[in-house]
Amino acid sequence: MAEPRKILLGEDELPSAWFNIVPSMPTKPDPYLHPQTREPVGPDALAPLFPMALIGQEVSTDEWVDIPGPVLDTYRLWRPTPLIRALDLERALGTPARIYYKYEGGSPAGSHKPNTAVPQAFYNKQEGISRLSTETGAGQWGSALAFACARFELECKVYMVRASYDGKPYRRSIMETWGASVIPSPSPETNAGRAVLDQDADSPGSLGIAISEAVEDAATREDTHYSLGSVLNHVLLHQTVIGLELKAQLEQVGVEPDVLVACVGGGSNFGGFAFPLLAEKLAGRRTTRVVAVEPTAAPTLTEGRFEYDLGDQAGMTPLMPMYTLGADFIPAPIHAGGLRYHGDSPLVSLLRKEDHIEAVAYPQSKIFEAAVQFARTEGILPAPEPAHAIRAVIDEALRCKEEGSAETIVFNLCGHGHFDLKAYEDYLSGNLLDV
Amino acid sequence: MAEPRKILLGEDELPSAWFNIVPSMPTKPDPYLHPQTREPVGPDALAPLFPMALIGQEVSTDEWVDIPGPVLDTYRLWRPTPLIRALDLERALGTPARIYYKYEGGSPAGSHKPNTAVPQAFYNKQEGISRLSTETGAGQWGSALAFACARFELECKVYMVRASYDGKPYRRSIMETWGASVIPSPSPETNAGRAVLDQDADSPGSLGIAISEAVEDAATREDTHYSLGSVLNHVLLHQTVIGLELKAQLEQVGVEPDVLVACVGGGSNFGGFAFPLLAEKLAGRRTTRVVAVEPTAAPTLTEGRFEYDLGDQAGMTPLMPMYTLGADFIPAPIHAGGLRYHGDSPLVSLLRKEDHIEAVAYPQSKIFEAAVQFARTEGILPAPEPAHAIRAVIDEALRCKEEGSAETIVFNLCGHGHFDLKAYEDYLSGNLLDV
Repeated sequence: MAEPRKILLGEDELPSAWFNIVPSMPTKPDPYLHPQTREPVGPDALAPLFPMALIGQEVSTDEWVDIPGPVLDTYRLWRPTPLIRALDLERALGTPARIYYKYEGGSPAGSHKPNTAVPQAFYNKQEGISRLSTETGAGQWGSALAFACARFELECKVYMVRASYDGKPYRRSIMETWGASVIPSPSPETNAGRAVLDQDADSPGSLGIAISEAVEDAATREDTHYSLGSVLNHVLLHQTVIGLELKAQLEQVGVEPDVLVACVGGGSNFGGFAFPLLAEKLAGRRTTRVVAVEPTAAPTLTEGRFEYDLGDQAGMTPLMPMYTLGADFIPAPIHAGGLRYHGDSPLVSLLRKEDHIEAVAYPQSKIFEAAVQFARTEGILPAPEPAHAIRAVIDEALRCKEEGSAETIVFNLCGHGHFDLKAYEDYLSGNLLDV
Repeated sequence: MAEPRKILLGEDELPSAWFNIVPSMPTKPDPYLHPQTREPVGPDALAPLFPMALIGQEVSTDEWVDIPGPVLDTYRLWRPTPLIRALDLERALGTPARIYYKYEGGSPAGSHKPNTAVPQAFYNKQEGISRLSTETGAGQWGSALAFACARFELECKVYMVRASYDGKPYRRSIMETWGASVIPSPSPETNAGRAVLDQDADSPGSLGIAISEAVEDAATREDTHYSLGSVLNHVLLHQTVIGLELKAQLEQVGVEPDVLVACVGGGSNFGGFAFPLLAEKLAGRRTTRVVAVEPTAAPTLTEGRFEYDLGDQAGMTPLMPMYTLGADFIPAPIHAGGLRYHGDSPLVSLLRKEDHIEAVAYPQSKIFEAAVQFARTEGILPAPEPAHAIRAVIDEALRCKEEGSAETIVFNLCGHGHFDLKAYEDYLSGNLLDV
């Protein structure tokens, strides 16, 4: 038999704890601040929105956090995920580089998002909460939370940006199939929504407005908490199940990665994928390059400023120390909806600021060129977000070809593109907005 | 750790040969006949359409057919597929039955169809063919063949029923992303298409017309062969990779199935899933019940006649001995497009005629009720076709509950429903055509 395409782990090799990178960081992140007082935000201020278990994880200095049994039970539906050697892409590029990808598209929602949606639903259930509220743009996060809430028999309320609600009805259907209640935002059900509708009854909405509605919903109901799909430390913590599996898989075949690549929006797929190996780099035990890839339409890490900024447009969130384009920045409507964020994870931001990771940005046309090349060689149709990672991987592999350097490049293919065919249609028909 | 949810095989346990059930059948199938002469059709008559390797497989009496290395190499992208214990569905039903499902939705196309598209592309490439033509209704088969042709660098021409071409543009986009050329049928490019357009320039097309166009395309070009996604013996042969893996997985955990369940349209997912175990039943080595599930809108096995009939409406195919509703039967437009076929695999038909398998039919509303229950308990959103199997499995599990019988039920979940969200939307909003 030829070298195996897939490096698999058994179910009994599923990590039993998540990895917290904070103890490994040479500089520790500064605290979140209250937007008015600019005082550090304490646990009590967050308690109306999050269960204490997640608030504890947000500020934890423990290196390991045990994964609860019921969360592992659900992870087992699709985890451990495969690490796949991209032999045909290598061949097509004529590169001496070896390319591997961790594939997260096999989850029920088609992306990595359930890795954190499941524990978030679990901890809320455990604290006696019966209902979660959240916002969703294109729908990936809302889908993942709807799936997780169905697993733990929680009600799920999703405020979906109206432009997507009207334009992507199928994304709404998948959430409703899992039992979630989906409402277009701005809605008449919240003060925040009504205020917008009073000004403009036909408002297409925005992620910023939807966040405000979801937070208000949770803050004003005893039975309800709020749930966020990226950016925060506890979200990245949950996603490290990806990187821990990756580490075990690379060790299984004795492969040492030279370059790790992942796309960055809020930072959760990037952090979850890279942190376990990055920590060993911080400890001087490896020299792996770690590359974050973002769209030129939202060039947070490559062109943003590192400063305290709000997580949303409306000012409902604490101030966080991060790279930001400004809380009122509205990115162009690129298809990679998951990367259209003005800020970034405070942990990823700090690691970038101190040059432990690199960052690069690409325009949309270059992204889809790479996505189509990948689909035609490797078969899997990537979502537009991980296609950013693929673009950078192809460019690194072409550099290796020029240099005659047999490096090992590993990236995170964090979701399939079966929900994104309109994007491919636009690209193939020459109608892609080239930003 | 609790009992594992997933029973996995290593890549080195991928079957190295397909299984042919014909040697195990007590009665052998009668030959295909020429529609005019009613004489048996010889290999030469099929040579303009298929490579000799596939024609040989169509009439093979060998029990095993080696899987070529390049086909195995591509299978390895997503195979072996997992066998999953439906613990949460069992719990929700309160049944003593144990339920397992083989999951084929992890392939790049999202269904079992690539299992045969890949070898079909390979054998054609090997015979010097540079282009394949085929038809597609909703798009699953066209997608799988587009994917396979990209792997072996063949051109791929898909005649897509115009109603779907216009109504399901995303299905077209996935084929085009893999490099296929997709044209609405009826088209002005063939005599068959032009004849229809002359009568009705706005014809919405039909699968029958699209088959005629694809067959004419292949028959009139030296560089082109035709490719079919179900019904024929060689297609079912390739799909037995599913059932062979299943057999190894059940043996690995020492589980003896009492009931096997799969949906039936043309019969390829059913045959591929059930034949390896069914052969042991035919040999008297097990007593497993084998249940085929079809829609009441196309009740071929439950209400059809067993007789020689055409495979298409236009009369381009040989006569095949099978259960049929008549070659001019037009099923209601149910969402399970893959099950809207007037006939059935001759092998499946003969096995049904001799009572080696059972058959049951369900209306669409009962199907989606089961699909939503499955999605909310097990997480995976099934395509409408395998939701037929799920309906029957739930009913068998409820019978087990009534009888207090701890039977083991295994079914084939042959594709995910991420392309079928319009169907779920119709069901959830009460707009489902209840046939």
